Amino acid sequence: MRIAIDAMGGDYAPDEIIAGAVEAVGLLDKSDQVILVGPQDIIEARLSSLEGRDDRISVVHAPDVIGMDETPIESLRRKPRSSIGVISKLAKRDQADAVISAGNTGACVAAFQMRMRNLPGVNRPGIAVVFPTFEGPVTICDVGANIACKPINLHQYGLMASIYSRHLLGIQNPRVGLMSIGQEDAKGNEVVKKARQLLRAEPNINFVGNIEGRDIFKGVCDVAICEGFVGNVVLKLTEGLVDGLFKAIKDELVHEKLGLAMEFEPVMERIYRKYDYNEYGGALLLGVNGTAIICHGASRSRTIRNAILASKKFYTEGVNDKIMERLSETCVRTADAQVT
Amino acid sequence: MRIAIDAMGGDYAPDEIIAGAVEAVGLLDKSDQVILVGPQDIIEARLSSLEGRDDRISVVHAPDVIGMDETPIESLRRKPRSSIGVISKLAKRDQADAVISAGNTGACVAAFQMRMRNLPGVNRPGIAVVFPTFEGPVTICDVGANIACKPINLHQYGLMASIYSRHLLGIQNPRVGLMSIGQEDAKGNEVVKKARQLLRAEPNINFVGNIEGRDIFKGVCDVAICEGFVGNVVLKLTEGLVDGLFKAIKDELVHEKLGLAMEFEPVMERIYRKYDYNEYGGALLLGVNGTAIICHGASRSRTIRNAILASKKFYTEGVNDKIMERLSETCVRTADAQVT
Repeated sequence: MRIAIDAMGGDYAPDEIIAGAVEAVGLLDKSDQVILVGPQDIIEARLSSLEGRDDRISVVHAPDVIGMDETPIESLRRKPRSSIGVISKLAKRDQADAVISAGNTGACVAAFQMRMRNLPGVNRPGIAVVFPTFEGPVTICDVGANIACKPINLHQYGLMASIYSRHLLGIQNPRVGLMSIGQEDAKGNEVVKKARQLLRAEPNINFVGNIEGRDIFKGVCDVAICEGFVGNVVLKLTEGLVDGLFKAIKDELVHEKLGLAMEFEPVMERIYRKYDYNEYGGALLLGVNGTAIICHGASRSRTIRNAILASKKFYTEGVNDKIMERLSETCVRTADAQVT
Repeated sequence: MRIAIDAMGGDYAPDEIIAGAVEAVGLLDKSDQVILVGPQDIIEARLSSLEGRDDRISVVHAPDVIGMDETPIESLRRKPRSSIGVISKLAKRDQADAVISAGNTGACVAAFQMRMRNLPGVNRPGIAVVFPTFEGPVTICDVGANIACKPINLHQYGLMASIYSRHLLGIQNPRVGLMSIGQEDAKGNEVVKKARQLLRAEPNINFVGNIEGRDIFKGVCDVAICEGFVGNVVLKLTEGLVDGLFKAIKDELVHEKLGLAMEFEPVMERIYRKYDYNEYGGALLLGVNGTAIICHGASRSRTIRNAILASKKFYTEGVNDKIMERLSETCVRTADAQVT
């Protein structure tokens, strides 16, 4: 398997990205290859400073970088030789089996969709993130690829994320909840109400009905489906709240008794490790014709390493074949899924 | 001032509601009155079991109760003599200056809008909730009244919530952020992009631009504006995550050392108190022609007491007059605010 990595994406690129790739290579098979994409001189200099370079790591030159704040479509057009642009082209030309980037999320989604195209039957890809909750991992889809969501998209996110949850996380019959503002049928906007009908009619989804924001952490579902705007707010809110709460606890503890704060430190670290989304190594862009992972901008080497291992698992398990199979079986068609 | 309270709303009604009303009366002015609305015999029995009944508390009979899971419009139609229906009618007939309920939120929003009508110039009311964050209180509007939001609604939420933040929370020039999925101009759906233009053009709003989910807890704004679906998810997610996180910490501490868990207990309680939204006594329905507060279904007497005091402040400060004044000054008109 050939895995192409954007060496220039994220706040800690290229050092942490390259370090993550080097770590991962040690855990991959002999026939696997990791392709680092970015300015050749920079990457080569970094690699040669590391001991014993593995010959399964190669470099493909991409002189340009898309900044985190640049407009996706415009920057891709203006910088065809950016690292995100080049990894996408490698996938398109069948020179890579998986692509990974911790760079500009919007540019990744646009480039991967444009170059890799959708899986047959998929209307719109969605980003699936795994939340390590207190009751087990919950896969949330979509967290930002599609902010003009149609009922058919939500239905397909339910199907795709179920398969992902089963084959990547080992959850046998994942319970799928639809994010809404109340559990009753009548709750939600028109898109959600229509999606609820489609999900209910789908025998291949273990649909448990509407869920509310609080339910994500209550163990009522293994997969939560929502449109990308809502999912993105959920993702970032969770991040901000957890950070803020731990900070507040620390401040209070120091105020209470310094010794208590020090005793609490290892507990906090253990919780952090246990509920650390970096463990899952980034988010899958489900529904593109290939294996595409988008990592958090703040990714360190561990996340990149785990993303590489996740891409390997996704590819080896044939998740996309299983998605296509399920989509061919479903009775829900685009025509049934219009909001009137 | 006359404050009508739904004695039957919420998980702990009527006991905690009546207890909260009794507590509040002691803190109100001599001329103020609290009207408890619900089945007369039940309320009277409860009141007579309390010592020294204050003659500023009166009872208005309402035999029916709308359940937490009933469909709002249908239940209001079917139960015209429900406690929510009756408090709304008291406001409509100018027999109450404020209404408060911890009952079915959807039924409250529908009844208050229908009976009290909107303030002149307001297109759609919005529910404003105060989040006690680590960096100070943040007012979020809307959290569920309006899930088919137009740009003009978001603009008006910005105006109304600013005035609320200033006069109820004492924040002089509240910074207003628009909830989106990235800080850049180009981010967000069409409604958000258009609302951003309106907010930017508004001299009466201290607009700081787009915010992301994580920013709510980072002290970048005092007011966060969003459509009701997103706001409702934010509200409930925060609740679920905070509960879950404290539970996880407790479990880890007990696992680490029982003594540590016990030492941590008072710290946890202090944090809970400090960041407890009950302190603010429920959510204002901003934009109705009157004073209307909707409390959490799990409200205890303290929340009800604080809601009564908040309604008094809202009324006394003339917040609605200030909203109308601002709306008459704004250059933004409905016609400017269409999404093309």
